[in-house]
Amino acid sequence: MFEIVKSDLLLLETELLSVIHSPEKLITDISKHLVEAGGKRLRPALYFMCTKNQVSTMEKIMPMAIAIELIHMATLVHDDVIDNATTRRGKSTANSCWGNHSSVLIGDYLFAKAFSLVANKASNEMLKVLTDVICSMCEGEINQNRSTFIADQTENDYLKRIEQKTADFIAASCELGGLAVGLSSEETKALREYGYSLGMAFQITDDILDITASSEQIGKPVGNDLRQGIVTLPVIFALEHSADRDELREIVQTKNMSEEKIKRGLSIIQDTEAIEYSYKRVSDYLDHARSVIPASITGEHREAFHAVADFVGLRSY
Amino acid sequence: MFEIVKSDLLLLETELLSVIHSPEKLITDISKHLVEAGGKRLRPALYFMCTKNQVSTMEKIMPMAIAIELIHMATLVHDDVIDNATTRRGKSTANSCWGNHSSVLIGDYLFAKAFSLVANKASNEMLKVLTDVICSMCEGEINQNRSTFIADQTENDYLKRIEQKTADFIAASCELGGLAVGLSSEETKALREYGYSLGMAFQITDDILDITASSEQIGKPVGNDLRQGIVTLPVIFALEHSADRDELREIVQTKNMSEEKIKRGLSIIQDTEAIEYSYKRVSDYLDHARSVIPASITGEHREAFHAVADFVGLRSY
Repeated sequence: MFEIVKSDLLLLETELLSVIHSPEKLITDISKHLVEAGGKRLRPALYFMCTKNQVSTMEKIMPMAIAIELIHMATLVHDDVIDNATTRRGKSTANSCWGNHSSVLIGDYLFAKAFSLVANKASNEMLKVLTDVICSMCEGEINQNRSTFIADQTENDYLKRIEQKTADFIAASCELGGLAVGLSSEETKALREYGYSLGMAFQITDDILDITASSEQIGKPVGNDLRQGIVTLPVIFALEHSADRDELREIVQTKNMSEEKIKRGLSIIQDTEAIEYSYKRVSDYLDHARSVIPASITGEHREAFHAVADFVGLRSY
Repeated sequence: MFEIVKSDLLLLETELLSVIHSPEKLITDISKHLVEAGGKRLRPALYFMCTKNQVSTMEKIMPMAIAIELIHMATLVHDDVIDNATTRRGKSTANSCWGNHSSVLIGDYLFAKAFSLVANKASNEMLKVLTDVICSMCEGEINQNRSTFIADQTENDYLKRIEQKTADFIAASCELGGLAVGLSSEETKALREYGYSLGMAFQITDDILDITASSEQIGKPVGNDLRQGIVTLPVIFALEHSADRDELREIVQTKNMSEEKIKRGLSIIQDTEAIEYSYKRVSDYLDHARSVIPASITGEHREAFHAVADFVGLRSY
């Protein structure tokens, strides 16, 4: 899928390992662990993809790509502290290896390192996009935390939350790509909208997989959202349409649910059309993403934008 | 002491409350709690003081002052999560009121908000100073964590640590003041050195007070450093010079010490000349701070620089 940015992403890996090097060995060790734990590098990949419409140099483009991934890593390491998570993508989390103390600080270090890398390079407009999106993500996460175990939520509440939690950052990654190579404000706006729709589709798919996938597929226990009281789109649909809605409501509102109850909750959701409905929303967002690809993007480059949208629609992990 | 920047600091309080306002009410609530918990506002006060040698506007100067204090608040809120602290300055910590989840995110939010405020306003050089100092603080904190309960440490290990943990940020606050109003690089360097020496003196005094003050004076339990295994200057001195050095060594290396043992440790330290020695170091740093005040700073303004040095030397809380 990401053939067009493959060499950029390879270079990114080397650069990531290089910038996280600190005189404080423990910082280097933990950061290296985080880089090597991998990940899809979706955000920098999209950023790179959005720079391809103009000729530019790696020297000009790379720092922001590194910053984007470092910020993503920082949010993940703090998420794992918050959730007391022991594994991510099948590998041990930083907090499970080095404790919360170092993990909170590593997150702060990665945030600061990210800004340090771009402070001298990016335009003020780009810096503003980057900082605003972190504020938005924190708002989304805090909102999510506040609304756990609450059954009375609308689809709009959910959409607003995943917009802040996920889609805004993916939108910003695309926008930053356009800004980095000086595309017109119209094109940059379109790239942002592409990223936004992609991000919404990405998060809804994530929330579907938490209900339908096997734990091997997604590298974490199934039903995790329900367990943590996070009310996602399929749950909201089922709470409205299921014949067993009262029982589901009870399950959603209960903290420290038994595994049996979680299984029952998942089964109630799956017995409705919640999954089909949610996939329909994914497909709507992806259609919209495809429809806003700027006309100036053509050929192999345009195909790549389509391929990413296809990938987000099909992924099962 | 801070008469010369009194009106700036008053305005800062209003501005702090205004910038932390978020559509997500919980963010506003927690941030408001943090702002209203107060603090000495030492860093922005020094920053303001260092801008006074040139005529400038509040519009130009204020954003960085807010950013400096927000970053300080962010590090404190993360420190309290890490240390599981329930009170700070005699008031409840954010983590004790709202839990670790929201507190980690609030710290991230404040970091991002700080950068967001200055991204459009400050020069690239100023942004670089700000981001580098956060990296340095994280390195210092991680270093401190790694070296807890280790008795074999030199004074240089300690000095390096408090430089990163405390002095660098106070140095940066002064440097940023000079940069904000375009002082010469020589003057800005001197202001940085003033701040650095002040910061070293400030932290050594903190570490002395942890041994000599009453818990009412400092708003937290006495002997806290010893309890947490943090090896400070008086401890290093006593480990070298006390007749009971072997007993102290044992105490320093023991985790989960009894209150009786901590008391005994404090008494061993106080029976040496550790406190006098440490105060001598404070006084050396303050003399140096006074000696580097740029010659261009005169009159009432110069007196303020001296008054701050006097204050750091005399403070007992």
